Amino acid sequence: MKLQVAIDRVTLEDAYQSIQQLDGIVDIIEIGTSLIKEYGLFALSDFKSKVVHSELLFDLKAIDEGVYEFEKGYAANADSLTVMGSASIDTLKQTYNLAMSAKKMILIDLLETNNDKINQLKQFDEAIFNLHYSYDNKNQNFDAVKAVSEFHTNFPEIKNIAVAGGINLDQAEKLNKQGIVDRIIVGGSIMNSRNSIEAANKFTEVIK
Amino acid sequence: MKLQVAIDRVTLEDAYQSIQQLDGIVDIIEIGTSLIKEYGLFALSDFKSKVVHSELLFDLKAIDEGVYEFEKGYAANADSLTVMGSASIDTLKQTYNLAMSAKKMILIDLLETNNDKINQLKQFDEAIFNLHYSYDNKNQNFDAVKAVSEFHTNFPEIKNIAVAGGINLDQAEKLNKQGIVDRIIVGGSIMNSRNSIEAANKFTEVIK
Repeated sequence: MKLQVAIDRVTLEDAYQSIQQLDGIVDIIEIGTSLIKEYGLFALSDFKSKVVHSELLFDLKAIDEGVYEFEKGYAANADSLTVMGSASIDTLKQTYNLAMSAKKMILIDLLETNNDKINQLKQFDEAIFNLHYSYDNKNQNFDAVKAVSEFHTNFPEIKNIAVAGGINLDQAEKLNKQGIVDRIIVGGSIMNSRNSIEAANKFTEVIK
Repeated sequence: MKLQVAIDRVTLEDAYQSIQQLDGIVDIIEIGTSLIKEYGLFALSDFKSKVVHSELLFDLKAIDEGVYEFEKGYAANADSLTVMGSASIDTLKQTYNLAMSAKKMILIDLLETNNDKINQLKQFDEAIFNLHYSYDNKNQNFDAVKAVSEFHTNFPEIKNIAVAGGINLDQAEKLNKQGIVDRIIVGGSIMNSRNSIEAANKFTEVIK
């Protein structure tokens, strides 16, 4: 199981420092949507020079003008990019085809994407499907293990699964034992800890 | 009926020139999602100093972390911001409440938002609801007049309606005669013309 750490809602300087610290410690370093929207892809294009051992993912959350955004994302040296499952099927097809041609990874963010739509997305079988629980849903507890189990029952043919949404160490361990997801995406539990390297290493221990 | 012109997929310098030319010529100047993602909100924060007579809208397309993105958008001097109708209801509630508290306009982008979801959104009655046809759907013709008519039949209680998706001069005239939408959003028909001021004035003529 892989560990993706999401860097979000920090300054460009703090993000820069974090990627240097986390390179090689985690499998995938995610530059969050907030950083893209605040600083822009041009400002992030030299991040890749500091990310040598980990994969660098930009959480673009493309929902329209997919090819344009993906071309700009790859031009900014992203190894992989994200598109919304709730985008039009044309946006999804175009970004998927672009990613496949460029031999890059594409992650489909299933935030608020219903099962009918997911059925249409199964054709993108090289993509990573991210079960993503909204950051803004503060009042409910997201049971990642249960959500993954249900998703797997509904869509057994979907092989590459990631999960995101307040994943903590306990959930990470359970997800690892469950053995369905390929990747966990962790934000606050690593980035808000006093020592993010130590926190990342703890996650790595329980999932390897 | 108001005219909103969308500036997208251009350099920061070209966008800067366009907003200066269009200020006061159109009702609302939209800074497109592509500009936000390429250059970042910080780089766009001085646009407002050149937009004195028109309203300045940043097409944020917030789909998660709504409050964070809206706070950054207002801090960058936007008069109004957009949130996706396909976001979680929590994201929509939080951004709507923030906009209302700040006495700012909020536009809900109905791209790929189904009728069940739109029914949940009717509570946001001060928002502008944007019937938005995906830029990436190249193979179909979007009949804006028909789409508006159907939307109005389905949701007669929604008062503030905008429409976007390849709107040309002919459609603008028909939409004006139809008398349902408050606002048309025009991109390429103005921005890709040789003289964008002249093109904008032609739109203004047929909708006033």
